[in-house]
Amino acid sequence: MGLSGKDLVGLQFVPAEEIKLILDTATPMKEIIKRQIKKVPTLRGRSVVTVFYEASTRTRVSFELAAKYLSADTVNIAAGTSSVSKGEGLKDTARTIAAMGADLVVLRHPMAGAAELLARTINAPVINAGDGAHEHPSQALLDLFTVREKKGRLEGLKIAIIGDILHSRVARSDIWGFTKMGAEVRLSGPATLLPQGIEKTGAMIYASIEEAIADADVINILRIQTERQQQGLFPGLREYSQLFGINTERLKLAAPDALVMHPGPMNRGVEIAPEVADGVQSVINEQVTNGVAVRMALLYLLTGGGNQHEIAH
Amino acid sequence: MGLSGKDLVGLQFVPAEEIKLILDTATPMKEIIKRQIKKVPTLRGRSVVTVFYEASTRTRVSFELAAKYLSADTVNIAAGTSSVSKGEGLKDTARTIAAMGADLVVLRHPMAGAAELLARTINAPVINAGDGAHEHPSQALLDLFTVREKKGRLEGLKIAIIGDILHSRVARSDIWGFTKMGAEVRLSGPATLLPQGIEKTGAMIYASIEEAIADADVINILRIQTERQQQGLFPGLREYSQLFGINTERLKLAAPDALVMHPGPMNRGVEIAPEVADGVQSVINEQVTNGVAVRMALLYLLTGGGNQHEIAH
Amino acid sequence: MGLSGKDLVGLQFVPAEEIKLILDTATPMKEIIKRQIKKVPTLRGRSVVTVFYEASTRTRVSFELAAKYLSADTVNIAAGTSSVSKGEGLKDTARTIAAMGADLVVLRHPMAGAAELLARTINAPVINAGDGAHEHPSQALLDLFTVREKKGRLEGLKIAIIGDILHSRVARSDIWGFTKMGAEVRLSGPATLLPQGIEKTGAMIYASIEEAIADADVINILRIQTERQQQGLFPGLREYSQLFGINTERLKLAAPDALVMHPGPMNRGVEIAPEVADGVQSVINEQVTNGVAVRMALLYLLTGGGNQHEIAH
Repeated sequence: MGLSGKDLVGLQFVPAEEIKLILDTATPMKEIIKRQIKKVPTLRGRSVVTVFYEASTRTRVSFELAAKYLSADTVNIAAGTSSVSKGEGLKDTARTIAAMGADLVVLRHPMAGAAELLARTINAPVINAGDGAHEHPSQALLDLFTVREKKGRLEGLKIAIIGDILHSRVARSDIWGFTKMGAEVRLSGPATLLPQGIEKTGAMIYASIEEAIADADVINILRIQTERQQQGLFPGLREYSQLFGINTERLKLAAPDALVMHPGPMNRGVEIAPEVADGVQSVINEQVTNGVAVRMALLYLLTGGGNQHEIAH
Repeated sequence: MGLSGKDLVGLQFVPAEEIKLILDTATPMKEIIKRQIKKVPTLRGRSVVTVFYEASTRTRVSFELAAKYLSADTVNIAAGTSSVSKGEGLKDTARTIAAMGADLVVLRHPMAGAAELLARTINAPVINAGDGAHEHPSQALLDLFTVREKKGRLEGLKIAIIGDILHSRVARSDIWGFTKMGAEVRLSGPATLLPQGIEKTGAMIYASIEEAIADADVINILRIQTERQQQGLFPGLREYSQLFGINTERLKLAAPDALVMHPGPMNRGVEIAPEVADGVQSVINEQVTNGVAVRMALLYLLTGGGNQHEIAH
Repeated sequence: MGLSGKDLVGLQFVPAEEIKLILDTATPMKEIIKRQIKKVPTLRGRSVVTVFYEASTRTRVSFELAAKYLSADTVNIAAGTSSVSKGEGLKDTARTIAAMGADLVVLRHPMAGAAELLARTINAPVINAGDGAHEHPSQALLDLFTVREKKGRLEGLKIAIIGDILHSRVARSDIWGFTKMGAEVRLSGPATLLPQGIEKTGAMIYASIEEAIADADVINILRIQTERQQQGLFPGLREYSQLFGINTERLKLAAPDALVMHPGPMNRGVEIAPEVADGVQSVINEQVTNGVAVRMALLYLLTGGGNQHEIAH
């Protein structure tokens, strides 16, 4: 069994059994990362091109290492958005990359829908590494993997996502992923940063952060982007910290063994207190390792691995 | 048989039989790009350093993938021109790269003659990836390869090159390459963008774009650089499009099976109409694939492959 | 025998016998660089992450090629300092890189002590590729290697280091390295660029450059950073050249077979006359090759090679 789609543009339309396949495939991949010699020949002679129209060292390096651990070649294109203000430009860039023999393209782009456009333009598989405020599916998959690994299951868990839901592609992909797998997703944050109509996704909005956290099995803390403050969307970093920052006191409201997650990079002392970030319930560093494992699984499955039964179960 | 020169600085002084050798070598290279596992051990343990004093994602990625498909290691140096205003700086940089063990250097530089200077400074082979308005030989070689592949020959063909000839290193290398191989080269564009004395190369200047295109077997459309407009070298993008843009109507003047070429990236709606860019006569995407194949051939031949009779027959 | 420390943060606390081990290990590494196929499988499946918070093409490329010649995978992170003004940021970045499976991290950072902070934060070995004005140990090791290779020994040699000692991490690491190995280190330069208390290291300050150079076996000429002139630390480039620049005349004061060294990139005509840079006594290009060899030795020894007796003696 493989993935039914050619690409991974988002989790919204990926069936639960395929999400499960990706998570199952990531398990042996994680073993490879822990080995001293992190190199398997699985994707030797395949080329992965990462195209980043927004700077993102963390995600770019994660995909690049994932590809190298599988022996794929990687080339990075750090593109300025100036030259691609028109969608047409992105399509021509995509055709060029495909014509050079790229076997898979990873795209980060500030425009929602950019990955979908790319996926329709070329035959090679496309992984969306973040498109505007739309989706960031590989981040959500690593979140799912981390929770499943720590809790043994996803079904029935209470997942609280706290912060700037409105601008967060991570939140959107998390909502689709966790609800599909049977978890309950709770959202809380400043009223100005909660999108209208988000309840249609199956997630629930909580005006009170305390209620959102109460008995939660997971608290996923989103990064606050300080430029939102200048836009008047929340009053100030200190006030944000007091009203929505996760500190030891608030953490006590959650289940005693609740996991603390953050997609990084953290603003310590703003959305997350240092003692929470470094506490025993934090799985933030583990998320990073799992990110490489999940991306290895995606590279493998989307380049045809799932049909060949080589690694996956 | 190999190449007689250590480097590829331009096509002006490369004999026709060596151009033929490069094109012949690129043919099996293209087969490698089309394979699922695009990896041959030919240049394993060789290191290719790409030094770009001008940004050029397209050419840089093409060389980088070409090197990786042949199992060479690649390192990229994206240099700011500020630190190399003096030629002396480039020479010291070159000696440093050579001393680190580079087996071949690819150079893009805004100054005409920079590749020649580099080639004289170090023992390792140098490929000119564009030096000012002088030459860009690997682009011309991929143009030659594309036409030969589609038409079965180069001799006797009519090649129309349209646009900003004055500032185009692609045009200069194309003129040398196509005329050496027995084709007829016709140039047309705004009078302010036609260099004086270019007829000495064997190419012919046409004041009328319609006459340049008439019965042509190939229309090679150059990219218009919008900064030239600010310099007053042509009136406006819309006017340029009307006077020199290649649209369906103008294309009809050429031979019925004429090829449409463009070195990319395209300004759709300016020098080329979208329906021409995407039409059945367009070989623009094919040019990109052939660019990787030709660069693989160059890397192979310039690192001694041509003397070992391994691939080139 | 291996290195006693997990990291290479500086030479100040590295015992002489371990410096000797590194130099001994670099000797066979240099042979690899000279081969046509510069590739040994020693570090296959290991990943080296280079993190540069300051631009440094020369050092970054040297480490990257060293890693590739040993078959390690490399990923480069070119970080802006803006996002890491707080030490906390660097620690989180370090944890992220470690969590992705990096086997060794190379760090260049404008803040003295940054490499030490990184080394304490993660389990993976860290090599300091320059931290503020503190140390740049791999540069000093290549200087030691070059002198030992040319002179057959280090003990008892007179090493003159000329220029901006105050801001030079190269000078600091050189002082520790050469004095530990039994050489005599002499410092000279503009009075404003000589740090107070530097004599405690065992080096000697010479007010007169002529006396510093007299009978020296090595003249190591530091790069003048032109921004120091704007800070009023020396009068002008021309005056600097007259007072402290090494020209043929000054070179005659040294031992007849004295070596001329420079860490690069050179300001020709300022701190070094062109005829000295390119003269028979110059080993400046050799230093670059030796830099790759020494870095190969460091990568090998710090990832456990020294305990396995695979290459070292």
